[in-house]
Amino acid sequence: MKRSVQIAEQAGYCFGVRRALDMVKEHLTGHDKRVYSLGPIIHNPQVVEEFRKRGLTPVESLASVSEGVLVIRSHGVEKELLEEAHRKGLEVVDATCPFVKNAQRLARQLSEDGYQVLIVGEEAHPEVKGILSYCGENTLVVSSVEHLEGKAISPKAGILAQTTQSQERFIKIVHAVLLVAYECRVFNTICNATLARQTAAVELAGAVDVMFVIGGRNSANTARLAELCRAGGTTTYHIETADEIMPEMVSGKQRIGITAGASTPSTHIEAVQKRLEQIDG
Amino acid sequence: MKRSVQIAEQAGYCFGVRRALDMVKEHLTGHDKRVYSLGPIIHNPQVVEEFRKRGLTPVESLASVSEGVLVIRSHGVEKELLEEAHRKGLEVVDATCPFVKNAQRLARQLSEDGYQVLIVGEEAHPEVKGILSYCGENTLVVSSVEHLEGKAISPKAGILAQTTQSQERFIKIVHAVLLVAYECRVFNTICNATLARQTAAVELAGAVDVMFVIGGRNSANTARLAELCRAGGTTTYHIETADEIMPEMVSGKQRIGITAGASTPSTHIEAVQKRLEQIDG
Repeated sequence: MKRSVQIAEQAGYCFGVRRALDMVKEHLTGHDKRVYSLGPIIHNPQVVEEFRKRGLTPVESLASVSEGVLVIRSHGVEKELLEEAHRKGLEVVDATCPFVKNAQRLARQLSEDGYQVLIVGEEAHPEVKGILSYCGENTLVVSSVEHLEGKAISPKAGILAQTTQSQERFIKIVHAVLLVAYECRVFNTICNATLARQTAAVELAGAVDVMFVIGGRNSANTARLAELCRAGGTTTYHIETADEIMPEMVSGKQRIGITAGASTPSTHIEAVQKRLEQIDG
Repeated sequence: MKRSVQIAEQAGYCFGVRRALDMVKEHLTGHDKRVYSLGPIIHNPQVVEEFRKRGLTPVESLASVSEGVLVIRSHGVEKELLEEAHRKGLEVVDATCPFVKNAQRLARQLSEDGYQVLIVGEEAHPEVKGILSYCGENTLVVSSVEHLEGKAISPKAGILAQTTQSQERFIKIVHAVLLVAYECRVFNTICNATLARQTAAVELAGAVDVMFVIGGRNSANTARLAELCRAGGTTTYHIETADEIMPEMVSGKQRIGITAGASTPSTHIEAVQKRLEQIDG
């Protein structure tokens, strides 16, 4: 029986990532200023390397940059950092995803209106750090219901989510907050593309024998896709490139599914598809 | 073995009902005007009868009243009805429960701020009719998740509850709305006394062989108490007075629990307790 390799309906670059990369490309051509990105431009090591060759230098902190162009990647950054970059006289290219900007704006508004802001997301994620910087002091970042235990929740709680969170986790946390807060103002800031990608991945995972989820190991949304596929009971491999595919991964498997995170270029997806089709059953 | 009869920790008159009855009593003494209540003053036929003897006349509609004092009971009424009573020159004693007033105020505010208001409650309940009158046209009254099916939910949804709803039902409905609305502003208007009474009832029901829930058959909150006790698997009787207790209801039962709705006077509770203690095992 011939092996089938199918790519999820929504997979790969999201609107925000594509937009950020386009903005960077524009500044890498026809300019003589040096161009820096704060952290890797996207959570994909291969793409970062490619852009480094084109002239984009990732830096760890603003202290390393004294002149030139500073690109703010799609995740966004802390408010203070943006202010500092302007103070330093850098040319700032703000490629923050508009959906992330919206979450930052809502967080600030809720905070100003006296809500205790709860951000559903991962504390260490740059997007969350950025959103957090727009909030007051008693803001909480929660990644699970267990996280809420022992925390003082204000009677007036404002909840939003990191744009790439899973809807299920978000709703579970809102549910828990509803039990203790009097007013709960919830903004579902999970981006539609993320939702669509997750839904398509779960759907495909349910119809195949093995799933390959392509994306940076440092990409939270890719890791979440893999987690969701696995949760349905399908054997799932999180890989960065086609090179990682071993014949034993697909041995005896007839139906293979592929999906990819928001920072995964289509070339990677195509390479994985090709390798899976050629590998011996 | 001796039979034990235990009353739930919170049972009987709530703050709003007690307050309303006190306000009525005050107007029944030392005044020569006739005093009317729109509908039964509370959902307890025996108490209504007692107050009728003291001079309080329940009327079905405002059309029956042309002079005197009009008492608005704790459930509250439609905005238009209150306006009409004032237009008619009646002396209005507004005994609307402050928690219900608060729900009315929030509903109006949400509506004015562009939210589609969703009231979790029973469409036919006077409290809900009252709250509804403060909202815009696309307001929905929902008593279950199934109720939401096929309904158009605005991206900006404001949710509140009839003060005597069960928390569990409320949260289930919020959960469902969260899946479709972008912003969901939730006010948990379920009154603390209701919650405390429900919690105490469920707790007691879990520790006894049979539960008696005392309150008017037309009392929604009493019916809900009975429903919650039954849901835990305990045999439960919803009765209005001690006279309804039959020996077979407690035959062979050692541990008996009692609770009562927000419109149930303590004299009823005591009478039931006494009857249960005297009845033959």
